[in-house]
This record gives sequence, structure tokens and C-alpha cells, in this order.
Amino acid sequence: MLPNTPPDIPTPALVIDEPTARRNLTRLAQYAKGKGLGVRPHTKTHKSLLMAREQLKAGAVGLTVAKVGEAEVMAKVGEDLLLAYPALDPARTGRIAALARDKTIRVAVDSAFAADALADAARRAGATIGILVDIDVGFHRTGMQTPAQALALAQHVSKTKSLRLDGLFFYPGHIVAKPDEQTAILAPIEAMLEETITLWKKNGLEAKIVSGGSTPTGTQSHHLKALTEIRPGTYIYYDRNCITGNWCAIDDVAAVIVCTVISDAVPGKCVLDAGTKTFTSDRLVGDATNQHGSGLIIEYPQAKIVRCSEEHAEVDLSLCDRRPKLGDRVRVIPNHICPCVNLQDQMYLRHEDGTIETLPIEGRGKLS
Amino acid sequence: MLPNTPPDIPTPALVIDEPTARRNLTRLAQYAKGKGLGVRPHTKTHKSLLMAREQLKAGAVGLTVAKVGEAEVMAKVGEDLLLAYPALDPARTGRIAALARDKTIRVAVDSAFAADALADAARRAGATIGILVDIDVGFHRTGMQTPAQALALAQHVSKTKSLRLDGLFFYPGHIVAKPDEQTAILAPIEAMLEETITLWKKNGLEAKIVSGGSTPTGTQSHHLKALTEIRPGTYIYYDRNCITGNWCAIDDVAAVIVCTVISDAVPGKCVLDAGTKTFTSDRLVGDATNQHGSGLIIEYPQAKIVRCSEEHAEVDLSLCDRRPKLGDRVRVIPNHICPCVNLQDQMYLRHEDGTIETLPIEGRGKLS
Repeated sequence: MLPNTPPDIPTPALVIDEPTARRNLTRLAQYAKGKGLGVRPHTKTHKSLLMAREQLKAGAVGLTVAKVGEAEVMAKVGEDLLLAYPALDPARTGRIAALARDKTIRVAVDSAFAADALADAARRAGATIGILVDIDVGFHRTGMQTPAQALALAQHVSKTKSLRLDGLFFYPGHIVAKPDEQTAILAPIEAMLEETITLWKKNGLEAKIVSGGSTPTGTQSHHLKALTEIRPGTYIYYDRNCITGNWCAIDDVAAVIVCTVISDAVPGKCVLDAGTKTFTSDRLVGDATNQHGSGLIIEYPQAKIVRCSEEHAEVDLSLCDRRPKLGDRVRVIPNHICPCVNLQDQMYLRHEDGTIETLPIEGRGKLS
Repeated sequence: MLPNTPPDIPTPALVIDEPTARRNLTRLAQYAKGKGLGVRPHTKTHKSLLMAREQLKAGAVGLTVAKVGEAEVMAKVGEDLLLAYPALDPARTGRIAALARDKTIRVAVDSAFAADALADAARRAGATIGILVDIDVGFHRTGMQTPAQALALAQHVSKTKSLRLDGLFFYPGHIVAKPDEQTAILAPIEAMLEETITLWKKNGLEAKIVSGGSTPTGTQSHHLKALTEIRPGTYIYYDRNCITGNWCAIDDVAAVIVCTVISDAVPGKCVLDAGTKTFTSDRLVGDATNQHGSGLIIEYPQAKIVRCSEEHAEVDLSLCDRRPKLGDRVRVIPNHICPCVNLQDQMYLRHEDGTIETLPIEGRGKLS
């Protein structure tokens, strides 16, 4: 259920419906348990210690982060962290090694350069860093290109002191099909994973962990037999992309931005007090020419957020049979919730009894 | 001159070249002085008390902000603040009125509703708020639509206790032409301003302040005879939009994002450690289909940032005659600097002698 508009909080405000978020994380935990998969949620979506704790309570095997600053935050609640990021510069590797003294820390890497830099920092810190070899399964952002390349890097890691070869990593960011249309897209990934694992075995190396997945592929993960753990992030809150992609129902959305109507002077339009500094400029997935605008206004589903400045969202009301009044508050489901959470200093958590709690977003920022 | 890459700061880092920023603000101050115009810089670009102080030292008549939280920050250095935003909700009006007890505070409004809400708050605070009537000169975001509407709102304001009618406000956000091609676009704005001012005069009302403009129109402001003050923001740092729009030269750009190369595993590409969480998803002005990517890499001008995730920028290097190495640092001029500044917790200020100072961005966030 989507949170109601709280009456007294300054807008634009990020409001999270606690029961819905809890239901989302419980549901995925149950799916994964049923399929014998671990869940290592990507905390980039909520950036919140409270939510990370809830995910761990629901059985998560550990937490995923992108940046070292996020790892430093999440280390307050998690004992087992995966940095899903090829951190290789001195400003990062030393901090990772420091964390690895007390925690299980793994890093996904796609170069011997990164492995060596991490090993060097680990050695100086007297720590061991676990390594997952990143393979490119089709998104073409990072990752080794072939099983042979993945083997070469794995062999390099296995011979490097202060590193521990733990397995394979991939991110299928190119899969944005509806769940029931993913089977054919997952097949070549399964083949590449199997080929890589077999090649490693032949060379005496084991991929204990095979970590992959996203929110779109979340409930289809069992089609990848080699997988040991999944890393969905958005699934805890969902967003407009997830509704459109059929990865959730509208009632699964746990996060809205509550906005105030501040202008209606231009005919056919109104203006909300939130622009790209709140919604970002992220378009709906697949909407290259921005035909669908910057978010879904729950109270006015026919309305379209046609243009955002930094602090203004211009809403075309021409298809609406009624108009909001100046000062009205409306709830917006943003296209992509993760970067919107990053733009807020706090979230308003709505509990089942309707009370609202103000909570920090501890992982906000953390660019390095 | 663009700042060099500092060796020891964590990336992605916002680096500001102090001499260049100073030259930019001095140059515009001199232009405005020569034309008899006041400068009221929009602080949304830098969000920095230091930069606001420098602008005031260079002769700015006051400061512009969008949100009340920004006004509260900038009130630490400015005595005269314009809220270029139709703040009308109780979460904002009370805070504005509180500021107006000690400072000259003006608000641009486009509804009697907003005027009444501000008056009510001012009355309760025992303060007076100055009002500029917002008129729509063609951007069609906010503002009264006709001189007659502007008169009606001005008459309402002039009769309302605790408000003071100070003049007219407009934002020509639709003008993105090169400076030497703006004359014809500015002519109808001049006509609308003159008609409104004449109508006010006939009805015994005076527009002491006529406030308008942007960075693109900055140096063409003298074509609007009625103007008393201009409100450029981006001009202090400039960005890729300004280079492309011919509003500055590349050597005028004072702000870069220093990034580290973290992956080169995918053929023809490299990946920087900064994505939409650093560069935003703002496209270059006029680049609806994102042909020009998310920023200009100074060291590799033939490179193109083809896709950004939250923490990754994928760079197509196919047109480059050389490739950056893993761990290299590069400088990126983002498409739109203002929201990028908002995403950083601090800036690194490079002084003339090459020393780097770390400074807070006090106005970051401040959504309400």
C-alpha cells in the first residue's frame, strides 16, 4: 500500500511505507530460500542502516555496496560486504583493506591491475580481501569478455598473496524484459557461467560464490542453475520503472515523493515544488525521447510531468478531468527511486499505525 | 584556466579554479556596472558562502535563491535576498517571514494565494516581505500571462498588509540562443515589460525593481531597457552547455569533476568512477536523443560518455588516438554544473599558487 501524505512535513519529502517495504523484502527472501539462493541486497537503493538491518533479519547472506564510503556505513550493521565495484585507486583500496581487517570484504574486479592494487593494500593492512571475477554477460559495462579471460584473472588472483579467490560476479543490467519473457535471454548467461566454471574446475579453481542479478531478474534467478546468490536493490521500494517493466504491481511501491503544488499560472499546467534536484533527470527505461515524463502522480494518473528544472516540475494537466489546487500535496512515484533517495537528507518512515518517523539516510553521498 | 588534477583527493571530486571563478564574476560585475544594472547572482550554482561573499564583494546588490533552506544559508552573508520561487506552503512561509524580520527578503509570486500566504506569515512574525510579480515572458513555467494579470496581482499585493510591492520578476529560460542571436528574441520581452510597467504607472503602482535574466542572456541584458537587475547563476563556473551555447569559452570554465579510470575490460571503452550520482542525467541543451553524452573529458576530447549508471560512466574511446590507463585521472566538464555541485558534500578550491583548499557546500540539499 502506498503511504498517505503526511500533513506536517516539509516537501518535497521522501516517504517510505514500512509495511510495504517489509513485505517486499520478505517476499524476495522467501522466493530465494525456496530456490536455495542467497540474497545479498544492494543497499544503494535505500542507503539506510535500518533497511539493511531488516534485510539481514530476513535472512540476507550479506550486503552489497558500490562505493567504499557505502561499505564504511554498512559495516556498522553487516559482517559480510560485497563491493560491486572495481575499486583500484589508492584513495579507495586502503579503506577497503582497513575494513577487511574486521569484516568479510569481497570486491568484484575485472583487471589484474585492480587485483594487484587491492592485494598491495591488503598486505599493508595485514588483511585478506576476497575477490569475485567480474564477467560481462551482455551489459557491456565492466567484466571479463570470455571464460578464458575470466580464467586468466582467476589464476592471477589465486596466486596473489592477501587475496582469496571466491568466485564469479556479473550484473545483467541489459535485462529489462518482463519476468515471463526472460527465459531466452537468461539461457546464454547460464551457458557462459557454466563454461567459465567448468574451465576453472579443469584448472583447479573453484567458484564458491556465483553472484549476479538485479531487481528485474530477481524472481527469475532460478533459471541460472550456477547462481549461488542474488543482488537485487530496487525491490525493497520499487519505482515507476518496476511498474512499467512488470517487475512489481503499483501496490508494491513503498516509496513516494510528496510534493506541493506551487503554481498554476500557466494555462493547462501546474508546477510542483520538486524538479531534477528531487526526481533526477532519469527517464523511464526505454523512453529515449521522454514521452512519459519524470514520474507518476498518484492522485492524477492522467497528468504528465513534462519538464523539470532543478526545483520545478511542470505538470501537463490537459488530460485530467480535475485540477489540483495551489497548496495541495500530491504523491509522485519517481521513474528511478535509487538516485532520488540519494538526493534526500532524511526519509519519513510511515509505520503500520500511521505514525511517521524521521530517519537519516546514512549512505547518502559517499561518492568515493 | 581549468584546474589541474590534484593528486591526493578522493574521486569523483569537484575541483574549482578560484582565479577563473573570480575572473568570471568580476567580468560580469564590470559589464553590469557599465550598463547601470544591478547583479543579484543566483547562488544555486555554487551553493557556497565563500562564493556568495566574493560576489557581494564584487558589487552584487544582493543574492538570489530558490528554496527557503538556501535563503537560510545565504542569510549568513547576505542582507538582501530574493527567493525566485513561489513559496506558498506553511512549511516555507513561516521560515521566510522569520528571515524577513532581520533581512530584506523578497519573493517572486504568481498567485494571490501565495501573496496571501506570505502576508499571513509576515503578519504573525511582525515582518514585511517584498513581492515581485512574476510574469511569463515565454518560458511558460510560472508567471502571470498578461500585463493585465500582472496588474491585478500587483494591485492585490499593494493592498495587502505586511507585503510591499517592489516590482517585476521574470526568468527567460527559453532563451538558449548564442548571445549575438538574441536581439530579436529579447524584443517581445522588452515590449511586455514596458506595457506592464506603463499599465502599473497608470494605476499608481511602481516597479522599482525589474529583475530578470540568466547566464545565456547575461551579456545581452542591456537590450532590455526596463531591467534594473540581472540574476545569472551558472556564469561563476560555466559548464559544457555554456561552451556549446557560446556563452563562454572553454578557458572560462572554472569547475571540473576529476574522475578515475576504473575499468577497461570492454573493448573500445573505459569506465570512470562517476555516473549519474555525479554528473546527473542532464543532457546537453537541445540534445534530446543524447548524441553528445554526459560531459566533456578534457584530456580526451574525442571520447564520448555514452552511458551512465549511478556510479559508472562508460566512455566510448573509438575515436581517440590514445587510451587512458587504469588508475588515470581525467577531468570532466559536466553538461550542467549546478545539479552536479548539489551532489557533492565539499569542493576542492584550487588557488592561484596551486594549493588546494577543501570547502563545504553549505547550500547543498535544501529541498524545502
